[in-house]
Amino acid sequence: MSAIDTQAADTIRPIIWTDNHLRLLDQRQLPDKVVYLDMVTASEVAAAISNMLVRGAPAIGISAAYGVVLAAREAWQKDPSQWRNLIQADLENLARSRPTAINLHWAIHRMQSLLQQIGNDPETRLLAEARTIHAQDIAANRQMGELGAALIKDSARVLTHCNTGSLATGGYGTALGVIRSAFRAGTLKMVYAGETRPWLQGARLTAWELAQDRIPVTLIADSAAHYLLSKGKVGWVIVGADRIVANGDVANKIGTYSLAVAARHHGVRMMVVAPTTTFDLEIQSGNDVPIENRGADEIVKFAGTSVAPDVEVWNPVFDITPANMIDVIVTEKGVIHNPDMQKIAAIF
Amino acid sequence: MSAIDTQAADTIRPIIWTDNHLRLLDQRQLPDKVVYLDMVTASEVAAAISNMLVRGAPAIGISAAYGVVLAAREAWQKDPSQWRNLIQADLENLARSRPTAINLHWAIHRMQSLLQQIGNDPETRLLAEARTIHAQDIAANRQMGELGAALIKDSARVLTHCNTGSLATGGYGTALGVIRSAFRAGTLKMVYAGETRPWLQGARLTAWELAQDRIPVTLIADSAAHYLLSKGKVGWVIVGADRIVANGDVANKIGTYSLAVAARHHGVRMMVVAPTTTFDLEIQSGNDVPIENRGADEIVKFAGTSVAPDVEVWNPVFDITPANMIDVIVTEKGVIHNPDMQKIAAIF
Repeated sequence: MSAIDTQAADTIRPIIWTDNHLRLLDQRQLPDKVVYLDMVTASEVAAAISNMLVRGAPAIGISAAYGVVLAAREAWQKDPSQWRNLIQADLENLARSRPTAINLHWAIHRMQSLLQQIGNDPETRLLAEARTIHAQDIAANRQMGELGAALIKDSARVLTHCNTGSLATGGYGTALGVIRSAFRAGTLKMVYAGETRPWLQGARLTAWELAQDRIPVTLIADSAAHYLLSKGKVGWVIVGADRIVANGDVANKIGTYSLAVAARHHGVRMMVVAPTTTFDLEIQSGNDVPIENRGADEIVKFAGTSVAPDVEVWNPVFDITPANMIDVIVTEKGVIHNPDMQKIAAIF
Repeated sequence: MSAIDTQAADTIRPIIWTDNHLRLLDQRQLPDKVVYLDMVTASEVAAAISNMLVRGAPAIGISAAYGVVLAAREAWQKDPSQWRNLIQADLENLARSRPTAINLHWAIHRMQSLLQQIGNDPETRLLAEARTIHAQDIAANRQMGELGAALIKDSARVLTHCNTGSLATGGYGTALGVIRSAFRAGTLKMVYAGETRPWLQGARLTAWELAQDRIPVTLIADSAAHYLLSKGKVGWVIVGADRIVANGDVANKIGTYSLAVAARHHGVRMMVVAPTTTFDLEIQSGNDVPIENRGADEIVKFAGTSVAPDVEVWNPVFDITPANMIDVIVTEKGVIHNPDMQKIAAIF
């Protein structure tokens, strides 16, 4: 990997394929520094996903798709007669890089399906497929933006959590795409963003994206969300998803469930925005989604400084929101009100 | 103010009167460094409260009482015939140092009542009164510890928020006093502590106190509390208070209301532990409690590092939990189940 400093562009591009390799925006350094790192092997891509250099369910899936291109190139260069066997370790490594977001598995599976059909040097066709995955994600986000924005009325104030914008996707965003579209349509007045401990995606990434788009944003501590909602100023809680299962239960960033409970308690509506690539119909209930527990350091240290003594830490970075606490799920194929198993099956 | 490094003592003493001045443990530097600072004037004490060198409703009240001693000494030294007039600016300055915790006003009012009766050099009698306030707070905490612990059964796991221990009080603690007593009684197995953004009192102070007492503690991000409670592992949420008004509504650290909603949603019991000095019967409803909004820097900066771009911040550091969401309020005068105006009036 080599580092390239660039200026922040108006259009944020977290994932770029250029000069025959993958270039990823290092989201760990935002908003302080805009630094791109170049990835030339699949194992570098897997490490980038695992270390949260790139994060966000759709962005992880797209990065992994490009990672498969790099894996195939390396395998083909080693032995063109064995490349489909040689590639397997890299695919498994990519699949293990994060456990909760299903887009990762979806993208690797789609790339695997194609590579069975390729006889000659696979790079060109796999790259075309990864680019298609990338472009389809952006198109899905634009479509969800329109569908979700149509639900928002009356100069609404909304609350969002984590980062679901250009940085989390191929571009434009899921929940943040809806917010962008509603702001442009004039029906959204401003956004409250939870800072999203422990990784501060809301503070570091969402506030940064919204400030670049000149959408008014007010940052809050996550624990202030219930008090905010009790004041009656917020019309919608709008979030993304890392995995939506067959019954409509949603795995998303830790704290999403808290916001769903708050929304229900205060009569605020709850919207989840996610493309169909985030659905996992093989799992019936949210209880069966693997929830990633990350290290204690995310809680007890900050920028190298200790903020707690050496005690036990429980750091689940996702939680499960039951379908019956969600008012609407917005996908690129349509809007699901009061989601349940039948309605979800119907859109697939 | 001068700095004195000391070793962490087994018994944490955040407030010490020694060598004719007030010595305060600088809680901003914990758990990294144990540093005491010496206060020789009332304005230094007011600044220490305002800057959160000392925090926690009872500890603020006790510190202010000692501050009145320093104010009286200074006024007497200036002009023994005018000291009661000269002291007023210092008293007002102390009273303005933090807006939400009522113990501050209670302590200043009690000291003021006494100083009306003093003819000669006031220092000795005022110091005796401040020492009495301090000692009574510790005694109240011990009493609440017993009363609250009696409610906890069956090797309970509990969740607490912010810091309500020795550091927040004259000693022993309110909610953390109940936890200490229950642990010693063998009915409490372990404690989950929310890190308590933005100031991280849970991470920096509560985890430190519990680790010193060898009470098992697991630290969590505040936004993980709802997910934790959904797992059925927690029997009680136990918190302190900054002000309890006539109808039983409770002002406490931001996030307390979120925990009350979570507790109610999951059938977990909610206990508030506060001495009668924290009650403000002149205010009828929580809506009328002044809620302190602190600066944006607590959210957008960490130890000098920017963690967000320059956006708007809403940083209320307290919230209001309605009485009807609290199962029990523990005071040194007794336990109030399902608090309401009549039951609260009855204990006074």
